Amino acid sequence: MTPPSRIEGDLPVVDAATAAAGIDADATVLTSGFGSVGYPKAVPLALAESDRDLSLTVVSGGSVGKEIDVALVEADAIERRFPYQARPPAREAVNDESIAFADRHIATLADEVAFGGLADPDVAVVEAVAVGADWLVPSTSLGHTAAWVEQADELIVEVNRAQPRDLAAFHDVYRPENPPDRDPVPLSEPGERIGESRIRFDPEDLTAVVETERRDEPYEFRDPTDADGAIAAHLREFLEAEVERSPICTDSVRLQFGVGSLGNALMGALGDADFGDRDLVYFGEVIQDGLLDLLDDGRLRSASATSLALSEAGQDRLFADADRYAEDVVLRPADVSNRAALIDRMGVIAVNSALEVDVYGHVNSTHVDGSRVLNGIGGSADYTRNAALSVIALPSTAAGGDLSRVVPMVPHVDHTEHDVDAVVTEHGVADLRGTSPRERARLLIENCADPDYRERLEAYLDRALDGGGHEPHDLDAAFDWTG
Amino acid sequence: MTPPSRIEGDLPVVDAATAAAGIDADATVLTSGFGSVGYPKAVPLALAESDRDLSLTVVSGGSVGKEIDVALVEADAIERRFPYQARPPAREAVNDESIAFADRHIATLADEVAFGGLADPDVAVVEAVAVGADWLVPSTSLGHTAAWVEQADELIVEVNRAQPRDLAAFHDVYRPENPPDRDPVPLSEPGERIGESRIRFDPEDLTAVVETERRDEPYEFRDPTDADGAIAAHLREFLEAEVERSPICTDSVRLQFGVGSLGNALMGALGDADFGDRDLVYFGEVIQDGLLDLLDDGRLRSASATSLALSEAGQDRLFADADRYAEDVVLRPADVSNRAALIDRMGVIAVNSALEVDVYGHVNSTHVDGSRVLNGIGGSADYTRNAALSVIALPSTAAGGDLSRVVPMVPHVDHTEHDVDAVVTEHGVADLRGTSPRERARLLIENCADPDYRERLEAYLDRALDGGGHEPHDLDAAFDWTG
Repeated sequence: MTPPSRIEGDLPVVDAATAAAGIDADATVLTSGFGSVGYPKAVPLALAESDRDLSLTVVSGGSVGKEIDVALVEADAIERRFPYQARPPAREAVNDESIAFADRHIATLADEVAFGGLADPDVAVVEAVAVGADWLVPSTSLGHTAAWVEQADELIVEVNRAQPRDLAAFHDVYRPENPPDRDPVPLSEPGERIGESRIRFDPEDLTAVVETERRDEPYEFRDPTDADGAIAAHLREFLEAEVERSPICTDSVRLQFGVGSLGNALMGALGDADFGDRDLVYFGEVIQDGLLDLLDDGRLRSASATSLALSEAGQDRLFADADRYAEDVVLRPADVSNRAALIDRMGVIAVNSALEVDVYGHVNSTHVDGSRVLNGIGGSADYTRNAALSVIALPSTAAGGDLSRVVPMVPHVDHTEHDVDAVVTEHGVADLRGTSPRERARLLIENCADPDYRERLEAYLDRALDGGGHEPHDLDAAFDWTG
Repeated sequence: MTPPSRIEGDLPVVDAATAAAGIDADATVLTSGFGSVGYPKAVPLALAESDRDLSLTVVSGGSVGKEIDVALVEADAIERRFPYQARPPAREAVNDESIAFADRHIATLADEVAFGGLADPDVAVVEAVAVGADWLVPSTSLGHTAAWVEQADELIVEVNRAQPRDLAAFHDVYRPENPPDRDPVPLSEPGERIGESRIRFDPEDLTAVVETERRDEPYEFRDPTDADGAIAAHLREFLEAEVERSPICTDSVRLQFGVGSLGNALMGALGDADFGDRDLVYFGEVIQDGLLDLLDDGRLRSASATSLALSEAGQDRLFADADRYAEDVVLRPADVSNRAALIDRMGVIAVNSALEVDVYGHVNSTHVDGSRVLNGIGGSADYTRNAALSVIALPSTAAGGDLSRVVPMVPHVDHTEHDVDAVVTEHGVADLRGTSPRERARLLIENCADPDYRERLEAYLDRALDGGGHEPHDLDAAFDWTG
């Protein structure tokens, strides 16, 4: 049997350098990629290796690989970058402002490009597993690829033979209309399919097809720590009680977990949870390794996301049996997977991590000491803001215990007190629902802070209480309280 | 002609004291009321005047009158309060923690009561203009009344003869289902009607009907200031350019304005804007006096909200011609008027005020000095987070110029940098879209800060830049920078 063709029809196949040469030096480039997979590889490398003086604006779907956030950064080719970055060279450039970066929500990024004035797109460079005259099949992530293909003037497709052709089975491409005639997305269950596996485009936009054979360089998950295990145990117990209590969890539990090693560990640990005979469903942005066991065991009825953000081992496992996994796993555009309306309608329980929380329930997900950005907010606020139950899970300390992650006042707020329902650390759970700020503070200190810091947090609170107020603070000491 | 009856059928009509006596001393009471109108009056007063030792939990739709937030507070009858308060005695009690208050978003409040664990409701006390055995017609606001009637075990209806019977013409009651079988709200235009004018209830829940004849004590709008006028002029110019630019404003402009005197002044000033032949539509939470002229002039095609938050003069004007205004004005439940999905689908331009903004675009709407709460977040984040364009409009200074409202770091964050697109003061507009934090800081200082504070803000920024970072801060001086 002949394997299905990757390039159908008479398309402008060129090498990466030729394709790259067609991109203006100051172009706005929209790229595929989400969860560090499915990003274009050859054209960014060719741009980085050219001797042109480039000042590109690069808008990715989400996290991408080193071909963009290392090679292009080190070639000093990027002037402006949205919406997320997760590689040290990009982070460094963003923090010293050699790249102008803005940290944007995932769900609304395509809208911001389409009509929000964020950027004026020139060319989309996207990875595919197959392409024809007016269609392409995305690879390991969908992200904002469908939107980019629609919005950019020109289109360059990288067809990657290292990605299985049958990744097509995962994709469900649905495009929302623009307001004010934007209909509701007609999705009633996380596992439902409402679109097709291909992204359509105007044939005249296709300027180049580049063949590649290069795997993603995806996440590497660290081994779960003792703290991860203790967080997972507290979370499990909390969620078991919640699904018993909540009238919206009678028949099923819809879950989302944030990207990263802790999220991955928490996903995996759910296998031990006792949710009675309720169906378990995943409605998030990334499929990580932790979900594969649940899928194999039949514990998870279906999973909806925008990226197969697996480790290399996880990719091998999924690629070996893609058609079977695709029965229960659907990849959607990021403005569907992360959409406020759908998270609300599904009644999702969202579990996301953070850098630190303060005693009143405000959360910093992005900025160390308020100044230095790590990766970006990603989709965490899409879920935290719109979920039926929003949980922040994090270890109680950082730097081997030298820093408390429960603080009086976070120096950067990504999620406000209005959006956070519960906090879990290795010490316990603070259920903040229905509590006043002062009650929250007591709960967070007693249940979540590391014992070494509790006394100092309480001392801060006592001093702050002298000044009174609904959310008492001593602004002189808010960031200088451990001494 | 006999006027239509206010009480139809054989209902348990009692006086307010009798109805109040049936409420447990530690009951959770859900009340109607939004935008300081349409709240129950007689039963709260009777509770306040009883000599019982009360410790009530009171959950209103939004802002209510002095019968609740003054009389009940001064009687020391409220132990816990959600989601908003706007009267000095309630504010004082909340700030000294004699009332445990939590400041909640409007859009999701009914969900929090229904399944979010916020409170366990006992009795709904709601104002109506008419009631029957299994229905009532709300008065000047809808708020969360339909949800409360559904969720509480018992129902007390105050039929207020001082509110016109024909307020029925404004109401469009639609109830979303609970997740996971929550269908999209089938609303495709702000002016469309998708429900009925009555709220239905289980006849067995109705424990008392109380007759009243007492007007709302609504907002008093101050006269527009010079700063209001200058803010309006800058906003108008910015919006005129935006509707020309934006592909989602080709045929119509959908607007929302925040509650209060500035919002009211900005609504009114829109009458002078040149939006070509585009239809002007309002999709917000309150109808304020500023919209009445636009409705009278035929400038506004339709207006959707959850409250007729008018001054007493505005009420007189609307009441005199209710049927005509109701042709173009629809009141919806607050979880429809403020719903994320609908704000998104309509492509709303949202204009809300705030206490202060920081140079990176974070906004404090609620807490003076980070500690003392004023009113609450209300619906401002529902719109700011979900609008196609989110504008924060505020004067550049407070306290007669003694305080800058543009600051290095707000001591309380209600809206994050991820959600704010533009800031307008009497000095100009900072269009923050597509900018990095450092670029935002320069724009906000140069275009929006009061000239008296620009040098000191720049000095702060220069010191902060020494430490580097994506969003540079000098945490020692973040709240102590004017000296």
